[in-house]
Amino acid sequence: MARGRFITFEGGEGTGKSTQVARLVDRLRAGGREVIRTREPGGSHGGEAIRELVVRGSADRWSARTELLLMFAARSDHLERTILPALEAGHWVVCDRFADSSRAYQGLAGGAETAFVEALDRHVVGRNQPDLTLVFDLPTEVGLERALARAQEDTRFESKGIAFHQALRQAFQAIVETHPERCRLIDATGSVDEVEARVWAAVETLAP
Amino acid sequence: MARGRFITFEGGEGTGKSTQVARLVDRLRAGGREVIRTREPGGSHGGEAIRELVVRGSADRWSARTELLLMFAARSDHLERTILPALEAGHWVVCDRFADSSRAYQGLAGGAETAFVEALDRHVVGRNQPDLTLVFDLPTEVGLERALARAQEDTRFESKGIAFHQALRQAFQAIVETHPERCRLIDATGSVDEVEARVWAAVETLAP
Repeated sequence: MARGRFITFEGGEGTGKSTQVARLVDRLRAGGREVIRTREPGGSHGGEAIRELVVRGSADRWSARTELLLMFAARSDHLERTILPALEAGHWVVCDRFADSSRAYQGLAGGAETAFVEALDRHVVGRNQPDLTLVFDLPTEVGLERALARAQEDTRFESKGIAFHQALRQAFQAIVETHPERCRLIDATGSVDEVEARVWAAVETLAP
Repeated sequence: MARGRFITFEGGEGTGKSTQVARLVDRLRAGGREVIRTREPGGSHGGEAIRELVVRGSADRWSARTELLLMFAARSDHLERTILPALEAGHWVVCDRFADSSRAYQGLAGGAETAFVEALDRHVVGRNQPDLTLVFDLPTEVGLERALARAQEDTRFESKGIAFHQALRQAFQAIVETHPERCRLIDATGSVDEVEARVWAAVETLAP
């Protein structure tokens, strides 16, 4: 059986990723594919337990370095117990955030050493890189306003302040430049249908 | 102010470490030192929250790699918020388990890549290595019997089976050989007083 495809969605807060994850999953399923929809941090029993530690509490509850290790612990479990078994069974996996969020949030914008982030990625993700990463890009103020409007409990990242979120946008743009072989920058302005069309244009480039 | 000294206790289950940690702390305090007694995983607010995830549940709840990342996440928080501030204030720190437990439990006995364990140690512990590490050594069956006799809830590691615990003993012996500059193998057979005398002989070699 052919290995499935692994597609990740990345970007700052309030860029509309989750809405588009749902649309893409529906569209792939309508085309007859078996698709696993998942998210990070989380996506497995253990990953969700670790998620509880990182998305709640005050902004300075964890240092960037500790947070980075928690994120890769959750990712390790998620890969082993959810993502890799699904890909090996021939399913497609669509994941809301993955390792590029660690590169951006804890690394480039958070201040954890880039060399450490890359060492973790080599040991945990290794060859299991996404086949396609869609990086949603939106002016910082627009995204943050949307994110805060919907936020209820898990607001640890939203509460980090505008300078952090501006650094985050630049970080994601830099990641796309560093990994052009798998990353596409998606203009997240405009209607949900317009953004969906941009997502689909990128996904169609994946070999069947 | 002179930086304090950092002493770690290591070894398998039921080797009598915790009893000797308490004795050493009492003896150092009686000699007029300010001493912080702490433990891993745990030792800080965040470290203890992560501890809850690793010491409970079934033996295969986490893979060795995920467990390794959780242990270093807890260690990162513990170092930043408890150990380093204490050492910088001139206090001595006596810690029940530290990075050598990751080398032994998740690395040598657990199967996580040694190169990965050492990369984590370099980035998280770095120059903040213990001044002295006392590695408690006891025949595996004796230690495991003691550990199971006292165990109540947090038995995830105790439940890993005799072969794992035998590998653990060899792992700790190997660590002492690899790091002779800071590690001393402590014969943990005999009475509590006898073991205390061996511990004290090692601690006395530390410069005042």
